[in-house]
Amino acid sequence: MSQIKFEIEQTLGVLSESGKGWTKELNLISWNGREAKYDLRDWDADHEKMGKGVTLTKEELIALRDLLNQAEL
Amino acid sequence: MSQIKFEIEQTLGVLSESGKGWTKELNLISWNGREAKYDLRDWDADHEKMGKGVTLTKEELIALRDLLNQAEL
Repeated sequence: MSQIKFEIEQTLGVLSESGKGWTKELNLISWNGREAKYDLRDWDADHEKMGKGVTLTKEELIALRDLLNQAEL
Repeated sequence: MSQIKFEIEQTLGVLSESGKGWTKELNLISWNGREAKYDLRDWDADHEKMGKGVTLTKEELIALRDLLNQAEL
Protein backbone atom coordinates (compact mmCIF):
# COMPACT_ATOMS: atom_id res chain seq x y z
CA MET A 1 0.00 0.00 0.00
CA SER A 2 2.98 2.31 0.55
CA GLN A 3 3.44 2.76 -3.19
CA ILE A 4 0.05 4.38 -3.57
CA LYS A 5 -0.03 8.13 -3.38
CA PHE A 6 -3.26 9.67 -2.29
CA GLU A 7 -4.57 13.01 -1.13
CA ILE A 8 -7.78 13.40 0.85
CA GLU A 9 -9.25 16.50 -0.75
CA GLN A 10 -12.46 16.57 1.26
CA THR A 11 -13.97 14.62 4.16
CA LEU A 12 -17.71 14.45 3.65
CA GLY A 13 -18.30 12.67 6.91
CA VAL A 14 -17.54 9.92 9.42
CA LEU A 15 -20.01 7.03 9.61
CA SER A 16 -18.68 5.28 12.68
CA GLU A 17 -15.67 4.83 14.94
CA SER A 18 -14.37 1.53 16.23
CA GLY A 19 -12.89 0.89 19.63
CA LYS A 20 -9.37 1.03 18.23
CA GLY A 21 -9.80 4.50 16.76
CA TRP A 22 -10.45 3.39 13.19
CA THR A 23 -13.16 5.36 11.44
CA LYS A 24 -15.36 4.57 8.46
CA GLU A 25 -15.35 7.68 6.30
CA LEU A 26 -16.71 9.08 3.08
CA ASN A 27 -14.00 11.18 1.47
CA LEU A 28 -13.13 12.76 -1.84
CA ILE A 29 -9.70 11.33 -2.64
CA SER A 30 -7.22 11.79 -5.44
CA TRP A 31 -5.32 8.51 -6.06
CA ASN A 32 -1.88 8.79 -7.67
CA GLY A 33 -2.56 12.34 -8.79
CA ARG A 34 -5.64 11.44 -10.80
CA GLU A 35 -8.99 13.19 -10.63
CA ALA A 36 -10.54 12.79 -7.19
CA LYS A 37 -13.21 10.14 -6.59
CA TYR A 38 -15.58 9.56 -3.73
CA ASP A 39 -14.28 6.85 -1.45
CA LEU A 40 -15.86 4.85 1.36
CA ARG A 41 -13.44 2.92 3.63
CA ASP A 42 -11.97 2.48 7.09
CA TRP A 43 -8.98 4.52 8.22
CA ASP A 44 -6.75 4.52 11.26
CA ALA A 45 -6.65 7.62 13.43
CA ASP A 46 -3.65 9.08 11.55
CA HIS A 47 -5.03 8.30 8.07
CA GLU A 48 -1.85 6.33 7.38
CA LYS A 49 -3.37 2.84 7.29
CA MET A 50 -6.49 2.07 5.30
CA GLY A 51 -8.89 -0.85 5.02
CA LYS A 52 -10.52 -2.16 1.88
CA GLY A 53 -13.07 0.14 0.39
CA VAL A 54 -14.98 1.23 -2.65
CA THR A 55 -14.55 4.24 -4.86
CA LEU A 56 -17.63 5.84 -6.32
CA THR A 57 -18.34 8.36 -9.02
CA LYS A 58 -20.62 11.29 -8.30
CA GLU A 59 -23.34 9.56 -10.31
CA GLU A 60 -23.01 6.38 -8.23
CA LEU A 61 -23.14 8.39 -5.02
CA ILE A 62 -26.35 10.09 -6.15
CA ALA A 63 -27.83 6.69 -7.05
CA LEU A 64 -26.82 5.42 -3.61
CA ARG A 65 -28.45 8.40 -1.92
CA ASP A 66 -31.72 7.89 -3.79
CA LEU A 67 -31.63 4.17 -3.06
CA LEU A 68 -31.08 4.74 0.67
CA ASN A 69 -33.94 7.24 0.78
CA GLN A 70 -36.25 4.62 -0.70
CA ALA A 71 -35.08 1.81 1.58
CA GLU A 72 -36.73 1.09 4.90
CA LEU A 73 -33.89 1.54 7.37
CA MET B 1 -12.04 -15.95 -2.24
CA SER B 2 -13.40 -19.41 -3.02
CA GLN B 3 -13.26 -20.39 0.65
CA ILE B 4 -15.73 -17.71 1.63
CA LYS B 5 -19.34 -18.75 1.83
CA PHE B 6 -21.88 -16.03 1.29
CA GLU B 7 -25.57 -15.67 0.64
CA ILE B 8 -27.12 -12.55 -0.86
CA GLU B 9 -30.29 -12.24 1.21
CA GLN B 10 -31.52 -9.01 -0.36
CA THR B 11 -30.49 -6.72 -3.20
CA LEU B 12 -31.32 -3.16 -2.23
CA GLY B 13 -30.22 -1.75 -5.55
CA VAL B 14 -27.72 -1.42 -8.37
CA LEU B 15 -25.72 1.81 -8.51
CA SER B 16 -24.07 1.37 -11.88
CA GLU B 17 -23.07 -1.14 -14.54
CA SER B 18 -19.74 -1.26 -16.31
CA GLY B 19 -19.17 -2.13 -19.93
CA LYS B 20 -18.09 -5.66 -18.99
CA GLY B 21 -21.32 -6.42 -17.15
CA TRP B 22 -19.99 -5.82 -13.65
CA THR B 23 -22.40 -4.00 -11.37
CA LYS B 24 -21.90 -1.98 -8.22
CA GLU B 25 -24.57 -3.12 -5.80
CA LEU B 26 -25.86 -2.58 -2.32
CA ASN B 27 -26.87 -5.93 -0.87
CA LEU B 28 -27.69 -7.53 2.42
CA ILE B 29 -25.25 -10.44 2.63
CA SER B 30 -24.61 -13.20 5.13
CA TRP B 31 -20.89 -14.10 5.17
CA ASN B 32 -19.97 -17.59 6.35
CA GLY B 33 -23.38 -18.12 7.88
CA ARG B 34 -23.15 -15.12 10.17
CA GLU B 35 -25.79 -12.44 10.61
CA ALA B 36 -26.29 -10.53 7.38
CA LYS B 37 -24.63 -7.15 6.88
CA TYR B 38 -25.12 -4.44 4.31
CA ASP B 39 -22.46 -4.64 1.64
CA LEU B 40 -21.38 -2.28 -1.13
CA ARG B 41 -19.16 -3.77 -3.85
CA ASP B 42 -18.75 -4.70 -7.52
CA TRP B 43 -19.99 -8.05 -8.84
CA ASP B 44 -19.75 -9.85 -12.12
CA ALA B 45 -22.94 -10.67 -13.98
CA ASP B 46 -23.22 -14.13 -12.37
CA HIS B 47 -22.44 -12.93 -8.84
CA GLU B 48 -19.56 -15.41 -8.77
CA LYS B 49 -16.66 -12.94 -8.80
CA MET B 50 -16.57 -9.94 -6.50
CA GLY B 51 -14.46 -6.84 -6.20
CA LYS B 52 -13.26 -5.20 -3.01
CA GLY B 53 -15.99 -3.61 -0.98
CA VAL B 54 -17.18 -2.43 2.36
CA THR B 55 -19.61 -3.95 4.79
CA LEU B 56 -21.83 -1.64 6.78
CA THR B 57 -24.06 -1.98 9.79
CA LYS B 58 -27.59 -0.61 9.65
CA GLU B 59 -26.46 2.30 11.83
CA GLU B 60 -23.62 3.12 9.41
CA LEU B 61 -26.00 2.96 6.46
CA ILE B 62 -28.37 5.39 8.17
CA ALA B 63 -25.44 7.71 8.92
CA LEU B 64 -24.41 7.47 5.27
CA ARG B 65 -27.92 8.29 4.09
CA ASP B 66 -28.12 11.36 6.32
CA LEU B 67 -24.66 12.46 5.23
CA LEU B 68 -25.53 12.13 1.53
CA ASN B 69 -28.73 14.10 2.05
CA GLN B 70 -26.71 16.94 3.54
CA ALA B 71 -24.01 16.89 0.87
CA GLU B 72 -24.24 18.99 -2.26
CA LEU B 73 -24.18 16.39 -5.02
